[in-house]
Amino acid sequence: MLNYKRYKSAPVVDFKERTWPNKQITKAPAWCSVDLRDGNQALIEPMVVEEKIEFFNLLVKLGFKEIEVGFPSASQIEFDFLRQLVDRKLIPDDVVIQVLVQCRDHLIERTFESLEGVKTAIVHIYNSTSTLQREVVFGMDREAIKEIAVNGARLVKEHTKNFPGKIIMEYSPESFTGTELDFAMDICTAVQEVWEPTPDNKIIFNLPNTVEMNTPNVYADQIEWMHTHFKNRDSISLSIHPHNDRGCGVAASELALLAGADRVEGTLFGNGERTGNVDILNIAYNMFSQGIDPELNIEDINEIIEVYERLCKIPVHVRHPYGGKLVFTAFSGSHQDAINKGVKAMHEKKKETWEVPYLPIDPADIGRKYEPIVRINSQSGKGGVAFIMESYFGFKLPKGMHKEFADVIQVISEKQGEVAPEQIMQEFKKSYLDRKEPLHFRKCRFEDLTETDTPFDTLASVIYTDEGIEKSFEATGNGPIDAVLRGLEKELGINIKILDYSEHALGEGSGAQAAAYIHLLDKDTARTIFGVGISSNITRASIRAIFSGLNRLKKS
Amino acid sequence: MLNYKRYKSAPVVDFKERTWPNKQITKAPAWCSVDLRDGNQALIEPMVVEEKIEFFNLLVKLGFKEIEVGFPSASQIEFDFLRQLVDRKLIPDDVVIQVLVQCRDHLIERTFESLEGVKTAIVHIYNSTSTLQREVVFGMDREAIKEIAVNGARLVKEHTKNFPGKIIMEYSPESFTGTELDFAMDICTAVQEVWEPTPDNKIIFNLPNTVEMNTPNVYADQIEWMHTHFKNRDSISLSIHPHNDRGCGVAASELALLAGADRVEGTLFGNGERTGNVDILNIAYNMFSQGIDPELNIEDINEIIEVYERLCKIPVHVRHPYGGKLVFTAFSGSHQDAINKGVKAMHEKKKETWEVPYLPIDPADIGRKYEPIVRINSQSGKGGVAFIMESYFGFKLPKGMHKEFADVIQVISEKQGEVAPEQIMQEFKKSYLDRKEPLHFRKCRFEDLTETDTPFDTLASVIYTDEGIEKSFEATGNGPIDAVLRGLEKELGINIKILDYSEHALGEGSGAQAAAYIHLLDKDTARTIFGVGISSNITRASIRAIFSGLNRLKKS
Repeated sequence: MLNYKRYKSAPVVDFKERTWPNKQITKAPAWCSVDLRDGNQALIEPMVVEEKIEFFNLLVKLGFKEIEVGFPSASQIEFDFLRQLVDRKLIPDDVVIQVLVQCRDHLIERTFESLEGVKTAIVHIYNSTSTLQREVVFGMDREAIKEIAVNGARLVKEHTKNFPGKIIMEYSPESFTGTELDFAMDICTAVQEVWEPTPDNKIIFNLPNTVEMNTPNVYADQIEWMHTHFKNRDSISLSIHPHNDRGCGVAASELALLAGADRVEGTLFGNGERTGNVDILNIAYNMFSQGIDPELNIEDINEIIEVYERLCKIPVHVRHPYGGKLVFTAFSGSHQDAINKGVKAMHEKKKETWEVPYLPIDPADIGRKYEPIVRINSQSGKGGVAFIMESYFGFKLPKGMHKEFADVIQVISEKQGEVAPEQIMQEFKKSYLDRKEPLHFRKCRFEDLTETDTPFDTLASVIYTDEGIEKSFEATGNGPIDAVLRGLEKELGINIKILDYSEHALGEGSGAQAAAYIHLLDKDTARTIFGVGISSNITRASIRAIFSGLNRLKKS
Repeated sequence: MLNYKRYKSAPVVDFKERTWPNKQITKAPAWCSVDLRDGNQALIEPMVVEEKIEFFNLLVKLGFKEIEVGFPSASQIEFDFLRQLVDRKLIPDDVVIQVLVQCRDHLIERTFESLEGVKTAIVHIYNSTSTLQREVVFGMDREAIKEIAVNGARLVKEHTKNFPGKIIMEYSPESFTGTELDFAMDICTAVQEVWEPTPDNKIIFNLPNTVEMNTPNVYADQIEWMHTHFKNRDSISLSIHPHNDRGCGVAASELALLAGADRVEGTLFGNGERTGNVDILNIAYNMFSQGIDPELNIEDINEIIEVYERLCKIPVHVRHPYGGKLVFTAFSGSHQDAINKGVKAMHEKKKETWEVPYLPIDPADIGRKYEPIVRINSQSGKGGVAFIMESYFGFKLPKGMHKEFADVIQVISEKQGEVAPEQIMQEFKKSYLDRKEPLHFRKCRFEDLTETDTPFDTLASVIYTDEGIEKSFEATGNGPIDAVLRGLEKELGINIKILDYSEHALGEGSGAQAAAYIHLLDKDTARTIFGVGISSNITRASIRAIFSGLNRLKKS
């Protein structure tokens, strides 16, 4: 029995004045990566200094302007890493590094030592303020907890006086979502009074969803409440730091942005304690998909995945939004068909805006490829097979042929599960292109009989083998296909009607091969079938298509 | 350059009458598993019939009362699977199976064939209704699209007449989130008029977030709009079917439940097309964590993970809420310390409600274990090491000793990364318990001198070795520890003060060993250090602790 009675619901905010549900996200927030601190500390194998430097360089390349590099007063490795960044001049002028520290004198002193030579840094102090932690961890009342924060702010202010670079203050009432809003406001205001920020020199108030405690709308209410209650709001950067315990980190961030947040702390692919920090890439790609500039250079997700997986030793899940291996794969036949038509419509109508069913973005826009979009299994249907043939191999099967060939693949997929594109091509060759038994076309020559002034103005001379025995015939018709088919009808004693015919180039330029599709009706049996042939000579491609079709008729 | 200008924002709903942000989730919805259809079709290797049966049995065991078993008219495998369920009598009386089918006569006919012998089934018809799909996929106007749905409903109604079991109708306007709300309402109403549902025989209107197109509050607005505009709402079960393209599937579901949804279609761990369907377990455990009965038997998550990973061949990510290997692991030292104190406070105050910082639920309540909660790395801090020593090995290190021993582990973790509990114990032995050089305690005997009536009422006779050479002394004190220490001070020419002393049993019963901790001050150098000893004899444990401490003083 699930022991649900042991839990109680987390408190909500009575805040009917909320306006965030009427809003839409229109611009990117300030992004702050905490990969090297919150992310790194939660790795089974934390990164060593050289790995951290590679990760830092990736973050810079992606366009992060604020990067939390660690807790230098807490461990020698983090101290050394920061010194390496400074000494090797790896911090670009437009990138601000951020260091976390508890509100304690000796730790703050050590932190300023670690910052020597840094032009601009965010010193991020925090203490836990929630009702629960005040009671069970610290055994302190509100005033004593507030005094920790105020004292921390004073200490940072003190040290800042003698620091040659610029210091931006960040304060986090940690476990904010478990803190009474009036107390969170009280403690932030007290810190604000010590630091005396201005619109030109803002203080960052970071309001963490340290542990997700409720549905994401509650976090948004909490953020909007703070947003509307802060004094001198224009002197404050309202930052959020969501975690993902309830699987709603991205949602909580997005709703908090609607609610007035200016800044988001998170990590790539949501690395971090427990269920992770919020995935900044996910939020950024969500913005991108809505036509908003995410202000990050994330057009090559594969590179990000490669570095992330190698250094963090954590895989990106196959279904992870935007990054997962399977997220641009459509298994359903109706989805494949709709994608196929959507891409075609965009192309035909020369639409500038991406609008394709089941593909919220064009995978190519973030460095992913179309190839893995369709994988064929027993539920894929005819559209998927046709899509594979066109997108992988360039064969534009006539619509009437989709089912005929999809049925071939269906039989295979019901036996073996998924069918790879290569195997589909192999089956296509086996069923159509290489169908040379019993009839094998060898050679042909055409003569123009226009001087005779009859409808039968083409004379075909054909050499072929029938079950290995070489044969030949001459026949006339109103064109090469007609002439060859008439000849074969007579030779083989059959009655065939051509229902449809199409041909297209398989590539560009005059040297490209052509593919010809012919739809035949056997008038004696009323059966219809397709034949396909390829050749750099369009006439030969057609003749091969006829032979392919006749062989398929005979076989089946 | 990220080509964001190619995209436009998805439309939102102007629906300021919304009430959902004022609500809280108070009860479980009707759950419908679509693992065997939407989930299975998106697997690289779809399940074979026997695997599907095992998965079906798991779903039944978990308490699902509605299970979509496939699209039997679309593939022989799915047809056969359903027949197996029926023929082998695997469908319990209280479980309703659901089958998906397009609005086409021959497919609906085949679907009813597959249902032969089923007592109650949900026949789930759908067609795509979005603006985009009407245009690029079907080339049809609203009326023609509506006619497909109405015709489907008529066909199901027709076949139901001759079906001996009970049929519940489900209709999905697929790609609902891309459909104009008035049209979605129009088409549902038309279907409703055909089917004529009643409060005792409800129709299911399933409103899919087929592709997540916007922030989750927009889906909630869409759901509440439908919820408030339906005619005869009490004859309708309002179902949702969210996907996860923007990483907000769980959030969208929760907000939709606030907005009036009665029923959720999803899968275990969010398997499904692309980024997956919504993860039902995630929503259910979220409810559980708030004291709401999720009405599913999900108290053993390990069993669910085992079956899921084996049959779907997709791993549960290490940071997946509730199920991931790392989600009950705290790497941060301050988190570990807070967890430690939170667990202790719950225990001491005999709290019935779970309230521990950083652990939204007790992992044990869902079959997870405490053991992996703490892993020690260079950022873990002293609390984590102490927690490991207590929770793994039963040593309750005195608070003052936490830092001393954590520093030992810190040096190791900065070199090698994470330190396993076993290695921590090994270092504890090396640093304290097995510290026998230069002084090695061998034997002692105590005599009670109470008849002399002095404060020095204990006579200790001690044999020990000093760098291998056996020595002995006799000394008196006001107890064994005092006597031994006085003797050693004299023997070795040192001045020691005992700052603190504690002792506890290492297990239960009279045969259990005791651990003794002694905090020593070397008065000559002003250095302090801890010593630890164990023995089944509490006096001997104390003497060993003294020797351990003196050896550590000498060494360092």
